[in-house]
Amino acid sequence: MKNVTKKPEILSKINFKDSENFSKRHVGPRAKEIQEMLNVLDIKSLEELVSKTVPTSILQKKELKLDESFSEAKTLEHLRSIANQNQVYRSLIGMGYSDTLTPSVILRNILENPGWYTQYTPYQAEIAQGRLEALLNFQTLTVDLTGLPIANASLLDEATACAEAMTMSHALKADRNIFEVSENLHPQNKAVIETRAEPLGIKIKYFKDAEFSPSRESFGAIFQYPNTWGEVDPQIEAKVKQARELGLLVTLVADPLALVLLKSPGAIGADIAVGSFQRFGVPMGFGGPHAAYMSCKEEFKRNIPGRIVGLSKDQFGNPAVRLALQTREQHIRREKATSNICTSQVLLAIMASMYAVYHGSEGLIEIAKRIQGFAQVLAKVLQKLNFQNLPTAFFDTVAFTCKTKQEAEGLCARFEKKRMNIRLGVEGRLSISLDEKTTLEELSAIVAILSDEKITANEVEAIASEVSEITLPQQLIRTDSFLEHPVFNQYHSEHEMLRYISRLERKDLSLNFSMIPLGSCTMKLNAATEMIPVTWPEFGGIHPAAPVNQFKGYSLLFSELESALKEITGFDAISLQPNAGSQGEYAGLLTIRAYHQSRGEKRNVCLIPKSAHGTNPASAAMAGMQVVVVNCDADGNVDVEDLKRLAAEHSKSLSCLMVTYPSTHGVFETQIKTICEIIHGHGGQVYMDGANMNAQIALCKPGEFGPDVCHLNLHKTFCIPHGGGGPGMGPIGVKKHLADFLPGHVLNKTGGAKSIGPVSGAPWGSASILPISYAYIKMMGAKGLKQATEVAILNANYIAKKLNPFYPVLYKGEYGFVAHECIIDLRPLKAETGIEVEDVAKRLMDYGFHAPTVSFPVAGTMMIEPTESESLAELDRFIAAMISIKKEIDEVKDGTADRKNNVLKNAPHALAQVAATEWAYPYSREKAVFPLPFVRDRKFWPSVGRIDNVAGDRNLICSCPPIDSYR
Amino acid sequence: MKNVTKKPEILSKINFKDSENFSKRHVGPRAKEIQEMLNVLDIKSLEELVSKTVPTSILQKKELKLDESFSEAKTLEHLRSIANQNQVYRSLIGMGYSDTLTPSVILRNILENPGWYTQYTPYQAEIAQGRLEALLNFQTLTVDLTGLPIANASLLDEATACAEAMTMSHALKADRNIFEVSENLHPQNKAVIETRAEPLGIKIKYFKDAEFSPSRESFGAIFQYPNTWGEVDPQIEAKVKQARELGLLVTLVADPLALVLLKSPGAIGADIAVGSFQRFGVPMGFGGPHAAYMSCKEEFKRNIPGRIVGLSKDQFGNPAVRLALQTREQHIRREKATSNICTSQVLLAIMASMYAVYHGSEGLIEIAKRIQGFAQVLAKVLQKLNFQNLPTAFFDTVAFTCKTKQEAEGLCARFEKKRMNIRLGVEGRLSISLDEKTTLEELSAIVAILSDEKITANEVEAIASEVSEITLPQQLIRTDSFLEHPVFNQYHSEHEMLRYISRLERKDLSLNFSMIPLGSCTMKLNAATEMIPVTWPEFGGIHPAAPVNQFKGYSLLFSELESALKEITGFDAISLQPNAGSQGEYAGLLTIRAYHQSRGEKRNVCLIPKSAHGTNPASAAMAGMQVVVVNCDADGNVDVEDLKRLAAEHSKSLSCLMVTYPSTHGVFETQIKTICEIIHGHGGQVYMDGANMNAQIALCKPGEFGPDVCHLNLHKTFCIPHGGGGPGMGPIGVKKHLADFLPGHVLNKTGGAKSIGPVSGAPWGSASILPISYAYIKMMGAKGLKQATEVAILNANYIAKKLNPFYPVLYKGEYGFVAHECIIDLRPLKAETGIEVEDVAKRLMDYGFHAPTVSFPVAGTMMIEPTESESLAELDRFIAAMISIKKEIDEVKDGTADRKNNVLKNAPHALAQVAATEWAYPYSREKAVFPLPFVRDRKFWPSVGRIDNVAGDRNLICSCPPIDSYR
Repeated sequence: MKNVTKKPEILSKINFKDSENFSKRHVGPRAKEIQEMLNVLDIKSLEELVSKTVPTSILQKKELKLDESFSEAKTLEHLRSIANQNQVYRSLIGMGYSDTLTPSVILRNILENPGWYTQYTPYQAEIAQGRLEALLNFQTLTVDLTGLPIANASLLDEATACAEAMTMSHALKADRNIFEVSENLHPQNKAVIETRAEPLGIKIKYFKDAEFSPSRESFGAIFQYPNTWGEVDPQIEAKVKQARELGLLVTLVADPLALVLLKSPGAIGADIAVGSFQRFGVPMGFGGPHAAYMSCKEEFKRNIPGRIVGLSKDQFGNPAVRLALQTREQHIRREKATSNICTSQVLLAIMASMYAVYHGSEGLIEIAKRIQGFAQVLAKVLQKLNFQNLPTAFFDTVAFTCKTKQEAEGLCARFEKKRMNIRLGVEGRLSISLDEKTTLEELSAIVAILSDEKITANEVEAIASEVSEITLPQQLIRTDSFLEHPVFNQYHSEHEMLRYISRLERKDLSLNFSMIPLGSCTMKLNAATEMIPVTWPEFGGIHPAAPVNQFKGYSLLFSELESALKEITGFDAISLQPNAGSQGEYAGLLTIRAYHQSRGEKRNVCLIPKSAHGTNPASAAMAGMQVVVVNCDADGNVDVEDLKRLAAEHSKSLSCLMVTYPSTHGVFETQIKTICEIIHGHGGQVYMDGANMNAQIALCKPGEFGPDVCHLNLHKTFCIPHGGGGPGMGPIGVKKHLADFLPGHVLNKTGGAKSIGPVSGAPWGSASILPISYAYIKMMGAKGLKQATEVAILNANYIAKKLNPFYPVLYKGEYGFVAHECIIDLRPLKAETGIEVEDVAKRLMDYGFHAPTVSFPVAGTMMIEPTESESLAELDRFIAAMISIKKEIDEVKDGTADRKNNVLKNAPHALAQVAATEWAYPYSREKAVFPLPFVRDRKFWPSVGRIDNVAGDRNLICSCPPIDSYR
Repeated sequence: MKNVTKKPEILSKINFKDSENFSKRHVGPRAKEIQEMLNVLDIKSLEELVSKTVPTSILQKKELKLDESFSEAKTLEHLRSIANQNQVYRSLIGMGYSDTLTPSVILRNILENPGWYTQYTPYQAEIAQGRLEALLNFQTLTVDLTGLPIANASLLDEATACAEAMTMSHALKADRNIFEVSENLHPQNKAVIETRAEPLGIKIKYFKDAEFSPSRESFGAIFQYPNTWGEVDPQIEAKVKQARELGLLVTLVADPLALVLLKSPGAIGADIAVGSFQRFGVPMGFGGPHAAYMSCKEEFKRNIPGRIVGLSKDQFGNPAVRLALQTREQHIRREKATSNICTSQVLLAIMASMYAVYHGSEGLIEIAKRIQGFAQVLAKVLQKLNFQNLPTAFFDTVAFTCKTKQEAEGLCARFEKKRMNIRLGVEGRLSISLDEKTTLEELSAIVAILSDEKITANEVEAIASEVSEITLPQQLIRTDSFLEHPVFNQYHSEHEMLRYISRLERKDLSLNFSMIPLGSCTMKLNAATEMIPVTWPEFGGIHPAAPVNQFKGYSLLFSELESALKEITGFDAISLQPNAGSQGEYAGLLTIRAYHQSRGEKRNVCLIPKSAHGTNPASAAMAGMQVVVVNCDADGNVDVEDLKRLAAEHSKSLSCLMVTYPSTHGVFETQIKTICEIIHGHGGQVYMDGANMNAQIALCKPGEFGPDVCHLNLHKTFCIPHGGGGPGMGPIGVKKHLADFLPGHVLNKTGGAKSIGPVSGAPWGSASILPISYAYIKMMGAKGLKQATEVAILNANYIAKKLNPFYPVLYKGEYGFVAHECIIDLRPLKAETGIEVEDVAKRLMDYGFHAPTVSFPVAGTMMIEPTESESLAELDRFIAAMISIKKEIDEVKDGTADRKNNVLKNAPHALAQVAATEWAYPYSREKAVFPLPFVRDRKFWPSVGRIDNVAGDRNLICSCPPIDSYR
């Protein structure tokens, strides 16, 4: 209240449009700040910056052709109208997807809470003990239910988990080549196994469960338990034994809720168990995301794919959890990998684990028994009504046949009229699957349809009153206890559960605390408006095999999203099926493979630059390709001469080049067009890894400068949150000539005319998180998207410029600018002082920041990607922290600080340490934990000291240990 | 996996019902633990415990007659179906309620976040700096917009705020008795003023704005700015001056969004400003809850009602915020109070403040200008269409008349057909109010209706293009700046906003961290399922004056909720209007008053026991009653002899007794029936304060053992969260003879045939939070509610028994048991050691707990109410903390610890302190901050040291100071 003249803003012109422009919320720096930052770079405008960063040859002049941007409110309204076009029928379809009751305390405090969903993969374990504990719970749950001692921290979906079991078995029995598959696996499991087997030359031999007769030439066999039609095979144990005696590795695909009552795969003798924890509180979501699991025998612990969380200890000997056996991980094994899995489904695995924590074994048993009881009632009714071919042993699903196929179809139609879906097999077989949501009331409604209203609710209740115990083959009823660890036995009231969730959340640094400048991982804003529709039942409650007229909303959303992605990438067709970046790579390569095959060409060499992420060669290996590595030059660019040489050398067998653009070195290579031309010149295709699309959107279109296919990380570039390590989505875009080969599916029709088989369990992958990317594009519009990319580049260059005097920036483009990220070189510092990049990463925690990417793509460096969403103030704090750390390193250099005993080597400093009487360090407590003034107001406390990775790997503990040993 | 026999749980009988029993989630202790706790009490069953706690004379034998309980999932479905019966029409009604865009980041991270909504009133400021800062922001916002230097931290609603302004003015000018009220106040404001004036003998003199002619006999005058029909009076400043010259205190009721463009009340010369911040991002919610504001001149700082947050400093001299001038608060001033306001609307005030933080002054100006611009376009169209009586100066509302009343009604009907509501005054006057949601598109739709489709969207756009600047009287355009403090200028991107919200949240101890055992405040579980429907648009988007056919869902919910509350309380009728416990008290007393008046009796003496909460006498004073205090005996019970004597003495003028039951001493007085009979015997009525209903539900019914009326704190007993100090809801139940007098309303019909006037701004108070209590009752059912009460009593007695050897329990019932809370006596300890109850409260923070109620109802004691939702583990932790503290006190006693310099006097220990090099205390750091092993895993850090209240009160700073002085 200082001025006396009228405020000029009040008197200036009214703006009737742009009521609420989302891009100004998404993009961090304010208009005035952008100018300040440009000044620092000695650049006049964002346009000039772009012109000096993106090669002129590929720079787009035209604005993207997208709909006018919507405000946040209008977007929510619009998505509401799309959601309303979905019809949520009650699903009794089964086939691996059951309806479930998500406890509200988990829904609200995990799935709808940025403190959980914005987390990054827990590489920096000291500030990730919360979700690591939750994942250890998930693994314990898996181990206990499956009876196999080694479990991973989730896989992408049950179908790919089946395929992973196959390739893992194959790798362990490399001299055999046949995989025996029960015909009674869920259809999508069989289809994905087929897709995966073919490029690897694995032969699939199907068997009928009753006629199983394994061969010594087979490396493995796989059964569904209970099988896809709900039957529990009383002879399963004998069959497993028979196969194992012939040297086969046996996998059981097991429903974890059924395992609550049934003998575990481990007890049955299986080597591997896989399955989906979807029904542990995770909505069906039209196919995903949910967490699949895998467990195996101890001896395979180095072969199991995916991440494993393991117990270790910190520098003080206190227990601490972290990702174990990382050298075993597939993206590190490159072309020797048998899987390309990288990020998986952490957020959903956590939800499932919390569901088990909340219910405990008693609660789960109660739920499972009730479902089995209802299924018994249903079976009795079906028998009474003279339906045929009823099963003898079942958990939740009762299959049956009608006299004619027409009758079966008529029955399905009657269910649909009552807004229920049941399963109808191709041969006219029917089944009804019950679940946690089933009540006596609902069962009566089902019976009324089956009996043409002849059997009343009272009669159903009378039948139910005759059912008192579960009916399962005696020898297959579980005898061992599970979930006896205290964590599954103390949080059964909502208050305790809520506080447990909150306690874990507080241990983890998420985007709601400070920036997470992970190079290449694009930890941008996950706006609340984008997230809100995800948990609407109209998106969550739909089965992936629901009839097409029930998911019109989804269809509309897919087609609009595909159109936008086509316009953004310049490609001609999109597949939304791959449910992770790695799966996108794999699908893209298969598409290329199918294209070559369709032309009768045998091309299987895949060129990959040295600097590529390890997932690239892993995906190529899975696609049956031979990886040939291309050199990079001193600037981190592809060595074009080497490329030319290799392309010529492999000209006849050249399948493709995989290239990341901008490169993993954070630079727009000016020769990209030339590179693509070289490949095309030799009849090869160009696969672009879309990890760095955040630097391209609205500035250039891969579909127009050379690549034939690329995947998009919707969880990086298009705002799907990382969820602590998943879910992700990795759709691919392809040029017209590849469109016919896009992946198809068995649950609902999608893909091209000559489609490769499905690569994911569901037709549109993790469909229920697609509204996030849809909303992002809708709210940003062409202008907003362009500004986002420009500011992403600006932010990276601002950091690079500010840090360069302290840490040299390793790679720059022609005019001295980086793209959307920068690599700083710490190798000289190590040589001089012994301080390693790891020490700097840990020290950043003391400043309240998550470390950038460490030692990728170049060992001894850090890759920093701030994204466009970070404000100037946050960038300046991060820069101040890094400069302050440099001073700390200098103290080591000049001898002021000890080489071994200093703030960096001892970082991070945990709370217990600094609040202890004893302080045996040669620096002050304040220096340790409040190294800069701003930290006082923004202190994040690592909950443990630096973790000893080696100790944990030496003695792998991947489930909750007895409480005594823990504390 | 240890046992080898089949698990007995698996083989036991299937339970087909009770699929998910909510009561086992709501109630903390497990069945087995309940038995253990009963053993500690040497009691066999909960039934026995109840029989030894609740007097036999009032104990109910019968189970409550409520519907069968619903599972959480079924409750959500059921509430969804109720919500769907509401029709959310676009509201253009105005009258103090505008539609608004709640930023999603605020919606998700505050309104839907237990870290914010489960907080308690910030009495313990050291662990409440987050919301205190947010409230200081709210006050700054109020001060800046109104131009008056003293603001409070919210009032209940605009209408009661008007009445508060009246009584405050009256108290300041006690020799005058007339209040001059503009006819152009919103109808509900006028009505509530009338209700409040009558019992106090204040005369209301209405004036037409144009004919204002104040009298020297009036103590105050009040104007609506802009007025209820949207007009901005160009002469307002002259009128204010004229009134002030005659000694009147002038109040302006101002729309804060209009104030963005308009000269502030302070600049105009007003003494007081009030209004509602609803349109700052808080949904209309069919009337509430939202935060009203009040600000005034510096000289009235001790007279302003409600809470004031003020800046002070902690023991180290660092700035710290806390509730200021508490001796000024109304519930402390008892019968001398001129207001009874206690808790207000903290959660909503915080939302409004965050809305301003997110938009900043520039954003607010842009919004306000756009609205005013749209209103100009509308006015031009209305003129073009020859509507009559258009205004000359307006902000968002344009009033007009048709040629006939029928025509006006027809126009309204046409709007309704298009799902829009406009305002129709009794005299046929119409108005259309625009708001933040208005777009050109919507304006075109409005114009189409007005013009019978004759004026097209293009024409509207053409008219809009002629409008470029705002049009308001030159002398009334704001000239001063506002919101210049950095907090309003740095969090404009979503990341920054999210992190600011999270940073504040982490400073505050909420129920999602640990128990908050506030005696009488019943901090029980606020279950996620109860909270989810609150933010559904079908509950949030309805204007309180919407036509009755648009809120059928609400009507159904009200009538079912009323039925349940009648059954629970034993009363015959319920009013859901009072939007706080204090308002319930006031409404109840007015009902009694009206009843006596209707019988021609002049009764105005209100007996109140000494131990009563200060709000009781304050409410009585407001209801025009004379308070007479009744003694209590040594056990804390009403001194029945004294009561008899006083009742007899005042027999002819006896209006009522106000009694809390169980008593504020935490005991079921056995004589309650006798007490009621004594009062009835003298023609008086009994008012029961429902603060302690949590101990009664399903065990006894006030309506059946004597009381004639009681209020229910839905925010205590029925799970509405405390929101850090509001919202609350205080409906009242009455016996049949009082039903006719229940409060009516001007916005929609409610209340009895001879209703007292409205007591709240909206007919059903804070309607949008009623689904919470509805869901709670629905999910608990009769059995669950009974169990909750039993376990509430069990938990309190368990604590009492365990603590008694260390801190004597002050009051017990006949058999040695307490009710649902217990008072422990610390006075002897103070005498021996100098350690005060305040020290223990602060020391509890170091253990991670919020203190119980301190020094109420007896100075030097603590009142502990654990509620039924706390688990045995949590109770044991709290007990361990209290026993450990006792040992620390003993160390002072035996001289091991210094009397002044010890862990208690220095508590709480803040982070900065313990992480400092210097440690000048005679005990260890570990002892200070990790006094028990469990604290290591559950450490909560007070963000400041102990706060100096006196310093802050000596120099009141109730808005954000310049940033330099702050840091």
